[in-house]
Amino acid sequence: MKLKKFDNIEFVEGGVCAAKGFKANGIQCGLAHAGASVTKKKNDIAMIVADKECTAAAVYTTNKVKGAPILVTKEHIADGKARAVIVNSVNANTCNPDGYEKAKMMTELAAKETGLKAEDFIVASTGVIGQVLPIEPIANGMKELADGLTYDGNSRAVEAIMTTDTMKKEIAVQFELGGKTVTLGGMLKGSGMIHPNMATTLTFLTTDADISAELLQRALSDVVKITLNRASVDGDTSTNDMVCILASGTAENKPVTAENGEFDKFENALYCIMMNLARMMARDGEGATKLIECSVTGADSDKTAETVAKSVICSSLFKAAMFGEDANWGRILCAVGYADADFDINKVAVKIGSEKGTVDVCKNGAGVEFSEEKAKEILGEEVIEIIISLGDGGGSAVAWGCDLTYDYVKINGDYRS
Amino acid sequence: MKLKKFDNIEFVEGGVCAAKGFKANGIQCGLAHAGASVTKKKNDIAMIVADKECTAAAVYTTNKVKGAPILVTKEHIADGKARAVIVNSVNANTCNPDGYEKAKMMTELAAKETGLKAEDFIVASTGVIGQVLPIEPIANGMKELADGLTYDGNSRAVEAIMTTDTMKKEIAVQFELGGKTVTLGGMLKGSGMIHPNMATTLTFLTTDADISAELLQRALSDVVKITLNRASVDGDTSTNDMVCILASGTAENKPVTAENGEFDKFENALYCIMMNLARMMARDGEGATKLIECSVTGADSDKTAETVAKSVICSSLFKAAMFGEDANWGRILCAVGYADADFDINKVAVKIGSEKGTVDVCKNGAGVEFSEEKAKEILGEEVIEIIISLGDGGGSAVAWGCDLTYDYVKINGDYRS
Repeated sequence: MKLKKFDNIEFVEGGVCAAKGFKANGIQCGLAHAGASVTKKKNDIAMIVADKECTAAAVYTTNKVKGAPILVTKEHIADGKARAVIVNSVNANTCNPDGYEKAKMMTELAAKETGLKAEDFIVASTGVIGQVLPIEPIANGMKELADGLTYDGNSRAVEAIMTTDTMKKEIAVQFELGGKTVTLGGMLKGSGMIHPNMATTLTFLTTDADISAELLQRALSDVVKITLNRASVDGDTSTNDMVCILASGTAENKPVTAENGEFDKFENALYCIMMNLARMMARDGEGATKLIECSVTGADSDKTAETVAKSVICSSLFKAAMFGEDANWGRILCAVGYADADFDINKVAVKIGSEKGTVDVCKNGAGVEFSEEKAKEILGEEVIEIIISLGDGGGSAVAWGCDLTYDYVKINGDYRS
Repeated sequence: MKLKKFDNIEFVEGGVCAAKGFKANGIQCGLAHAGASVTKKKNDIAMIVADKECTAAAVYTTNKVKGAPILVTKEHIADGKARAVIVNSVNANTCNPDGYEKAKMMTELAAKETGLKAEDFIVASTGVIGQVLPIEPIANGMKELADGLTYDGNSRAVEAIMTTDTMKKEIAVQFELGGKTVTLGGMLKGSGMIHPNMATTLTFLTTDADISAELLQRALSDVVKITLNRASVDGDTSTNDMVCILASGTAENKPVTAENGEFDKFENALYCIMMNLARMMARDGEGATKLIECSVTGADSDKTAETVAKSVICSSLFKAAMFGEDANWGRILCAVGYADADFDINKVAVKIGSEKGTVDVCKNGAGVEFSEEKAKEILGEEVIEIIISLGDGGGSAVAWGCDLTYDYVKINGDYRS
């Protein structure tokens, strides 16, 4: 799947290690073999460490059930500062009586092996909910993890945060900021239990930009709303969602301390990164074979457009039809119709599109004749666009989803076994 | 699957023909062969006619896209009166430029062959959205349909409204009302595009009770809220949902004209009917192998309890786990946690149960040890209970759903072909 390009922003290699001064590593400490029942031969713990203290910002899940690591991370970055990340997969360390203590312990073990303070660490976990996290494999593996940190360890790190993900999701960009070249990169895990509501997944971003903690948080909060919060795989909002970003200032750009043109540039680069990560995540939705991109224009507000776009990408019936490559546009209109927003259904127009072109399927709220053959050709592609106009108004939004397949059921019918 | 019984209410045979003075019929007029692409060899048009004028009430979909037949039905029962029903499957007559005219035409054709007025008819359609309804097969079949009306035609009628339904869903009860034995029966179609939001499906109910139009509407509106509106198969709210009821008064009970004990009895019988229909519908959800019944107690209000119960039965991840008979209770707690309601997650307790017993899986918001073997045995049954306590408060609610299976994807991947 191609990345979406932006003017004046260049894609580079390196993921979370692309920005100057960030080391990473990932190893298999053996969580899969110590009580948890997901058994994949893959890295299961990762660490990211910056050469110097960073400003930090994060956005968390809105689920009332919050993973214990989130509580610890919140405490650790309350001062807007952090320097490192410790994260495991396989076990979510959530809904356990000793979750908080275990999350604290992870940061202490990491601090010991790196010479940093426990409070320098952001901590995260992802995997099965409600199984006690065995700390022994983590304790035993921590020295190897810390000793192996390198400036090109991003690929080992991203592997360690994958659960049902079938592909590594990392990205990095370079752009000019305050007279210097600045790098921003990140990695994301997320395939199931993905629904627009705050952060949706684990995402770790690093940059060498110099930007105040307040503006870093503002940029992150703004961009999450229109990227990860508009991606859905299955309508389930995870308990452990978190997006965090570390900004080291190593690029020595003129510090971004006000909402001026430089802040806009940074935010735009962050959007480029996170929008592409959101697309990768939806494309790699559990069992998915296609990315569905739904654009809504002509709404009375962006909010209305967003509500309609999300309603479409969340419809199980529509998603199953996409898997079947069936141009059953009635299901699109049905999902538009039950979206909780105000508009005139009789003005709605719908096109379906892909690299093979577009075809009008509905105008003024009613079907129009179209070539089933052309529609079939369009729907045979990997990236499908659903283009909806609500008729008038300047509001617009894009949301990302995927098709619903046999494999989604298979993956989730026996996730624990 | 067993029916849920109620005191002083007896189940009887006969569906929509159980109440005195209601004839029904269903035939295959050939809609499947006239432009629509669902090809099942089954009845596709049904009629119900009462011997005398009835009081009538209905509840409709909240989808902005409304099937054309709903607009016509609203006009026809605006006076609280109706005498008959004409309904087809295969084609929903929705989002078509000539939908309203075609729906009107159906009532006119039905009136002509029965000697009734077009305005006596409630009209409904279900099937593919956005394909023009071919009126010829309906016109050609109407005489046969009307001529074949009998007092025991309920089974032919219920077959005619089925789409992806795999079983006929009909039910009838008798109870004492105003000194007489009163009968109340009904039939329902619904398997996919099922989500709690107004009516959820096509349901036709008949009774020989004597009850005012106002109270009939009140009883129907009340009961829909806690039965069909609490059932979900896939989160998609149909465009053609409708529940209607005809009350003939033939039982000659003392007319129900006030919200007294007699009204309560009638409403209770209606609840018995519609709750069981809701359970049948969820059990027969597209591709489903299990009925999931989620009970929530200890909430600060019934509304909170309902929100939590619906959140659980709508979770795709939880539903896939039920298909896999996997006691992955973390997904239950996750869905409880993202429900949009106020409660203390640390007081939540969860049991899973079935005819094989119950097992505690979560207390005080955290996991408890349980026998995986016992859980497996419980989840092997056809009807699974999820029993949630929010800790304190008198609010409660029950919601019904089903598991998510390969067959759901199969059925909906190629619905039109």
